[in-house]
Amino acid sequence: MKIERSVEVGLAERKYVILIGRGILENAGDLISPLCISRSPVAVVTDTNVWRLWGERLASSLSEAGVAFEPIVSPAGEENKTLGGLSCLYDGFAWMGLRRDGLVIAFGGGVVGDMAGFAAATWMRGIRYVQIPTTLLAQVDSSVGGKTAVNLPQGKNLAGVFYQPKLVVTDTSTLETLPEREIRCGVSEVIKYGAISSANLFNKLLDRTPVGGMAEIAGECCRIKSEIVERDELDSRRRMLLNFGHTFGHAIEKISGFGEYRHGEAVAFGMVIAAVIGERAGVTRPGTADKIRKALSAWGLDADYPQDSAPLIPLLSADKKSVEGGVRMILLRRIGDAFVKRMSFSEIEALLKPGMNGQTRLDFEGGGR
Amino acid sequence: MKIERSVEVGLAERKYVILIGRGILENAGDLISPLCISRSPVAVVTDTNVWRLWGERLASSLSEAGVAFEPIVSPAGEENKTLGGLSCLYDGFAWMGLRRDGLVIAFGGGVVGDMAGFAAATWMRGIRYVQIPTTLLAQVDSSVGGKTAVNLPQGKNLAGVFYQPKLVVTDTSTLETLPEREIRCGVSEVIKYGAISSANLFNKLLDRTPVGGMAEIAGECCRIKSEIVERDELDSRRRMLLNFGHTFGHAIEKISGFGEYRHGEAVAFGMVIAAVIGERAGVTRPGTADKIRKALSAWGLDADYPQDSAPLIPLLSADKKSVEGGVRMILLRRIGDAFVKRMSFSEIEALLKPGMNGQTRLDFEGGGR
Repeated sequence: MKIERSVEVGLAERKYVILIGRGILENAGDLISPLCISRSPVAVVTDTNVWRLWGERLASSLSEAGVAFEPIVSPAGEENKTLGGLSCLYDGFAWMGLRRDGLVIAFGGGVVGDMAGFAAATWMRGIRYVQIPTTLLAQVDSSVGGKTAVNLPQGKNLAGVFYQPKLVVTDTSTLETLPEREIRCGVSEVIKYGAISSANLFNKLLDRTPVGGMAEIAGECCRIKSEIVERDELDSRRRMLLNFGHTFGHAIEKISGFGEYRHGEAVAFGMVIAAVIGERAGVTRPGTADKIRKALSAWGLDADYPQDSAPLIPLLSADKKSVEGGVRMILLRRIGDAFVKRMSFSEIEALLKPGMNGQTRLDFEGGGR
Repeated sequence: MKIERSVEVGLAERKYVILIGRGILENAGDLISPLCISRSPVAVVTDTNVWRLWGERLASSLSEAGVAFEPIVSPAGEENKTLGGLSCLYDGFAWMGLRRDGLVIAFGGGVVGDMAGFAAATWMRGIRYVQIPTTLLAQVDSSVGGKTAVNLPQGKNLAGVFYQPKLVVTDTSTLETLPEREIRCGVSEVIKYGAISSANLFNKLLDRTPVGGMAEIAGECCRIKSEIVERDELDSRRRMLLNFGHTFGHAIEKISGFGEYRHGEAVAFGMVIAAVIGERAGVTRPGTADKIRKALSAWGLDADYPQDSAPLIPLLSADKKSVEGGVRMILLRRIGDAFVKRMSFSEIEALLKPGMNGQTRLDFEGGGR
């Protein structure tokens, strides 16, 4: 067994464990077979890219462990994370005769995880599922906490449920075949974990680590997230902190049509915007936005949203965290310490007016606040 | 207030109350307004028939209580209980800007309740909802227990979740505008409650009661169902008893294309089939099938499925209660006492071979078993 780290997510009867290790995919069959109480095949939900690169590895591991399975392979990409895509998964489940005592394996990145999780949560009112996340973003973020969803034309992740997997198997060697851009997107969320709750993790990210050493970092992110999720499974209080950078990030994804920027890239912009808002409102330690910019740059991420940010504000009201006339912003006191602040749209607008880019940086650097 | 009976469904933090009374719709606004923590309008999900007949009554009650609302009116009928219909509800929610702190009212029969409940359960990963069931079937059955779903081309209720309402408001006066056929369909489920757990209720149904006296009967059904649901919210054990008559009932609905027979009519056939299977297997007291036939006839329901039942058997494997090579049948020991029995398809087929109709009845009456 190649388990380097294990993180327990303790949600009473919905408790599960995240097993992390380089090459652990070879053990997937042995890890999953105890969950197979049905003799009918397991549904492996995946996408074309993941199946081409890593399908053989998972398939032989399952076969060696005597786990029968059917692959349900969707086209890759966020644009398939729709009700139509969900309907295709249901078709696959029906075709293979997946029953209530069956099992779904979500094998891929966040899109596969979100859709397969939603499909498992709703197929016959809920059957068990296992996550095998293959992107950095999914490994550090979307595989922990049980958020499942599809996008609607009106917004990202608008339809979904909270539904916990029975097991998460995280093989960091799958990161080695990821495009550079995918790594960057994942790192953006890793920087977020550091920013909201661990200055120690954050400081490690000011220099670039080789992908091979990611098991340690992934484990740390899962630990932070699981601690937060344990205290607030249904996302009503503390879990909102995980949304740092996401309020504006979602708006940026939406205004650019879910294509130009990837989720992690939009969140990178969103974190800097949130830090600037906090500094200007006098609640965030000066220089915090620049620290975030520095970490993002180390990994090749753009830090400053290149467009005018004013048109984003009307889109904030569609955010799941919006309230009457405003939104609950996640702000930092300093790196490693986040909190929720209810802000009106007009307040946010006024704080953003001076512009976001070079000017902002000069403001703070020159002003010495 | 016109509350004649209240039944508490005790599911720990998901506890809620069912308030039953003739004319209680007039109090709906006052009952619902304490649940309105958002100043944005409540979504009233309903269908064209219910809205035409009873919309004004609910609308004025909500308005008098100061509850702003938007009606989202779908076409009536089971054929709209699809992913497409669900998508229309999401469109309505997005259009009205329904937020996480908002509220959905499901105002109608089982189709409206199942769809609105599923939409509320999944909109932004779950917002609160209230049921106002207007058909007998919904009042005695689908409004209790939190089952929500839509149909898929491959089967009824294949996609859904368990999701409890915050309140159920049951006005038995809405039964007065129901077509005769709808009343019959509801009574079929009432007879089921008697058959599985109350000989006393069952015996009351051997004669027809006027619709006006339904508050008592509806309350009794809700009490039986809530007791069962409390012990087994997620439908893994005892709750399966509620499926008496439904295994074959669903197959009959499916083979006839969800149009020829209504749910309650198909369940009526299914109950007689299950009783005959039980009698022939020697586990059900002889004469039980005939008692069920007698109760069904008193209310104008056909008791015997007029087609050959053999083609139904292959469809049983699509049932959510199916197991490898068979199905968990709900059978009766006698009226008022049900249990679960795992039976193979071949066993069921052999027991059904002698035919279901006149012949069967003669068998038992003549044979004096």
